[in-house]
Amino acid sequence: MPQYKAPQNDFTFLLRDWLDIDSHYKALNVDGFDFDLVSEIINQGAKFAEEVVAPLNREGDEQGCRLVDGNVSTPDGFSQAYQEYIANGWNAMLGSPEYDGQDLPYSAAVPIHEMLNSANLSWRLTTMLTESAVLAVSKHATEELKQQYLAKLISGEWTGTMNLTEPHAGTDLALLSTKAEPLEDGAYAITGNKIFITGGDQDWTSNIIHLVLARLPDAPKGVKGISLFLVPKMLIDGTGEPAEKNNLSVGSIEKKMGIKASPTCVMNYDGAKGWLVGEPHNGLACMFTMMNDARFQVGLQGLGTCEASFQGALAYARERLQSRAPQGIQAPQSKADPILGQPDVRKMLLTQKAFTEGCRALSLLYAQQMDVEKYGTDDEQQNAKKVIAFLTPICKGFMTDIAMEVTNLGIQIYGGHGYVREWGMEQLVRDTRIAQLYEGTNGIQAADLIGRKLTRDNGQMLNATMALFKSRIKNISHSQDREKAVSLLNCWQQDSMALLGGKPEDLAGVATDYMYYSAYVILGILWLEMANCAEKMEHKALALGKRKTCDFYINRLLGRKDVHRHVLVVSAEDLLSVADDEFDYS
Amino acid sequence: MPQYKAPQNDFTFLLRDWLDIDSHYKALNVDGFDFDLVSEIINQGAKFAEEVVAPLNREGDEQGCRLVDGNVSTPDGFSQAYQEYIANGWNAMLGSPEYDGQDLPYSAAVPIHEMLNSANLSWRLTTMLTESAVLAVSKHATEELKQQYLAKLISGEWTGTMNLTEPHAGTDLALLSTKAEPLEDGAYAITGNKIFITGGDQDWTSNIIHLVLARLPDAPKGVKGISLFLVPKMLIDGTGEPAEKNNLSVGSIEKKMGIKASPTCVMNYDGAKGWLVGEPHNGLACMFTMMNDARFQVGLQGLGTCEASFQGALAYARERLQSRAPQGIQAPQSKADPILGQPDVRKMLLTQKAFTEGCRALSLLYAQQMDVEKYGTDDEQQNAKKVIAFLTPICKGFMTDIAMEVTNLGIQIYGGHGYVREWGMEQLVRDTRIAQLYEGTNGIQAADLIGRKLTRDNGQMLNATMALFKSRIKNISHSQDREKAVSLLNCWQQDSMALLGGKPEDLAGVATDYMYYSAYVILGILWLEMANCAEKMEHKALALGKRKTCDFYINRLLGRKDVHRHVLVVSAEDLLSVADDEFDYS
Repeated sequence: MPQYKAPQNDFTFLLRDWLDIDSHYKALNVDGFDFDLVSEIINQGAKFAEEVVAPLNREGDEQGCRLVDGNVSTPDGFSQAYQEYIANGWNAMLGSPEYDGQDLPYSAAVPIHEMLNSANLSWRLTTMLTESAVLAVSKHATEELKQQYLAKLISGEWTGTMNLTEPHAGTDLALLSTKAEPLEDGAYAITGNKIFITGGDQDWTSNIIHLVLARLPDAPKGVKGISLFLVPKMLIDGTGEPAEKNNLSVGSIEKKMGIKASPTCVMNYDGAKGWLVGEPHNGLACMFTMMNDARFQVGLQGLGTCEASFQGALAYARERLQSRAPQGIQAPQSKADPILGQPDVRKMLLTQKAFTEGCRALSLLYAQQMDVEKYGTDDEQQNAKKVIAFLTPICKGFMTDIAMEVTNLGIQIYGGHGYVREWGMEQLVRDTRIAQLYEGTNGIQAADLIGRKLTRDNGQMLNATMALFKSRIKNISHSQDREKAVSLLNCWQQDSMALLGGKPEDLAGVATDYMYYSAYVILGILWLEMANCAEKMEHKALALGKRKTCDFYINRLLGRKDVHRHVLVVSAEDLLSVADDEFDYS
Repeated sequence: MPQYKAPQNDFTFLLRDWLDIDSHYKALNVDGFDFDLVSEIINQGAKFAEEVVAPLNREGDEQGCRLVDGNVSTPDGFSQAYQEYIANGWNAMLGSPEYDGQDLPYSAAVPIHEMLNSANLSWRLTTMLTESAVLAVSKHATEELKQQYLAKLISGEWTGTMNLTEPHAGTDLALLSTKAEPLEDGAYAITGNKIFITGGDQDWTSNIIHLVLARLPDAPKGVKGISLFLVPKMLIDGTGEPAEKNNLSVGSIEKKMGIKASPTCVMNYDGAKGWLVGEPHNGLACMFTMMNDARFQVGLQGLGTCEASFQGALAYARERLQSRAPQGIQAPQSKADPILGQPDVRKMLLTQKAFTEGCRALSLLYAQQMDVEKYGTDDEQQNAKKVIAFLTPICKGFMTDIAMEVTNLGIQIYGGHGYVREWGMEQLVRDTRIAQLYEGTNGIQAADLIGRKLTRDNGQMLNATMALFKSRIKNISHSQDREKAVSLLNCWQQDSMALLGGKPEDLAGVATDYMYYSAYVILGILWLEMANCAEKMEHKALALGKRKTCDFYINRLLGRKDVHRHVLVVSAEDLLSVADDEFDYS
């Protein structure tokens, strides 16, 4: 596995030229930010990801996490890297200045997130969840809780976790049974078991702030009876410092397929002291504050592993000498040609590249909309909210599903060596596999897209998204490309609108197809845009590379949309009519 | 992970009703075999796979193999299971009666192979390679070598291995450098390093027979200078028993993504004594004797893991209660419905089922052709050879690629629990991943199909395969289904013939697309056949299940063929024109 190198030339192209981030910041009156500053942030982040975080990735997978006397021990070097991370202010990128955060635009932070995911997914997870916790506490906690916890979560002096899942309540949080009983001092005693808690414990910080969903004694049944609580690992004293251990413990660390260096904990709350965040029975809504963000962040995990796998595979394809290329000898001085000369290997690499760079463009477009949601006028904010809501399940679902394909291609290009652990290619597959599952399985994302986002909203979020793409398409200079993009978009819109009013079970049966169809269309439009925009670039390799990858995408990958498109009209009858014993002839 | 249960009702349907194995054996004059006997063999094999081999699978993955003082130690119970396997004659299923083999028709043995793969892929691998070694020795070794080694390889008293790959010679065996120098007694001294040697050592048997590719001193360069040698771990004495250790050793065991209970060894040959098998410089042809068989067997590994994953996912979907089904409440007495009620989950399960049962049908059709090749008239044999040659890369490439999709769906249906090792679903993904790589990567299979099998043979192997399907399609009773199958077949034939004379680089660029297109068409035809044939069955759940799964395949999966079909006309220009620095803008 070669050393990870941040894709800085692509970031430059996408931010400076394609998204024209300078005009974007100016239009939103974001003071003090321009491409030059963002570029400097990316340079520094790249250095940190490449030199500090990436080198820990392979060994972290081998060592994994251990539970020693009830405390989690993370792999060698993980804590030191974290100390450096927070010392340099990376954890505070998105935090409010009121609590010493740096308040960066989202578009400046997302490249950093992507690079950390490429470098070391396990290491990144805990910091990602802290950012999520910051969002929830900022928005919903009392002033007192904010004063006690927020600055330290933003700086990273303490980390945060999200505690939703219980053994019998995963997708269906209505079933959760953790209890919260009022104490005399206004706090609550939290009792119950939570599973799959990322960073439930670690050896990096003096405290860990758990956000826990639980039920009050008088809670209604179902999701409307769930409240959110802040439950610190260590109760703090009058000076705000950790003093006494709360009544909570780590039951075990899950043995998982991948992200082995990230402690996934079973958490036991045995009357642990916690404080209500937000209104009683309104915990799910509080959690949803960070859901768009967390889901998008998981999509970025897919993107990060795509980039890492593509880099590894490309380096290997350049070096590995086997056989001669069918179009003619490529390296006459060697006994064999680099496998990069093989059309099938090039097809695999270009597939990796087309999806990786396409997803990167999508992620930065999404980040730009997050900026609009933050800095825009009321109308702009409302519009951006719709676009973000619509794109979130696509980013989460598609970018992580495609990461499985892309990282598996990375193994395939290495041949048998890809299956051996030391090369790191198989680790990327094992690590990225989780991203299809957590923060709502990708089936749930698809259901969210076709249900809450498309049909229940009667197409309004779709229309806002369409309008964004329509306005962007106008900038495509070549008329043939522009017409192609318009045609893709119009067709997608018509097909989408035809789904409105569909029966819930029919929609559920084609939900993943609609997600894939949407994503393949969006990536097609983004590629047409990028190829046209890149023509202006002085960097000729980038200009030509974007055009050729666009052609490749249109020629060889875009056709996949039709498989999913044609299925949209199929009713759920064929799915629902299969009787239990017809599945396995038992 | 539920206990593995062999899919005996499906075997019965496919062998007795769909392939009409009784008429098949009668037509080939295979004495003493009929469905009843085969069924009894399957019953016994099912018992062994379910009760002896499957229970070792999960713990085998945790324990893995160890190298202790130069000797491989396999997980607990693996050796005992092997002793039972050979004691009951399973290893001898396909061996010649001249050496106490049972000489079963291939169609009787393939269900056993599938079940062993489902039960425990790691455990099965060593026995599979012994069967391959038996083929090579039977066909090419001298009478003296046969007398010394064949009976013990057939009984399983000793196991066999295949030694092809070297660090710098994988796909391209022309680069291999292991040397064979003649000794005075007619034997050879073998010196070199081999990697990825499955079962290179184990603690099951008193000897291991390595088949090793090496170069004689006067060998021409390239693949025409490779010879095959039989190199026993232990040199045998005058009584035929192991006496003295040969000069070979295990350098290390690879740390792999999966099949951890199968020792993948680096083998060092330091002047080890070996004997020539076949003619000098003809080693590759000798290895190709077993290549069709070994590649098909790897395809069966894909099928085996598909079945195991489907069973696990189906059991979980029946038990796991989460949310309500969109078509209405399914289990009013419970707080939530089984997720089997969710259309998206049913779609995932039916996708698993359609591919698993479709691949099983393909595997048994292939096995039937192997019977024809063995027992038929000269003309029949020649024809079967062509069909087998054409179908081999499809079975290997498609059945293992689709196994990645199917086993990943198995994880997905389990949600986060699928990512946790104890459930076994993620192990199936890690284990089956190797099958896309060894015995020639799936890219090599695709190149073999479109190159050696389709175009270089000028379509003759294709035509033999077409003729087989045409004759089978006639039996489809519903005219609409028959016409659909005819149309699929004719279209595939035309598209295939249009590829003849294509430029090598263009063909290489669409090779995997041609493989997928062919496979999706073949499975479509098989499903139409099966649905019609099943109507006659007394087992109503099977009759209805086959029909509904056929509908599902036609409605929702068959459309994938078009993505690949449309790409067949794309020239390699878009692949080859990308310059080195256009890949990564470096």
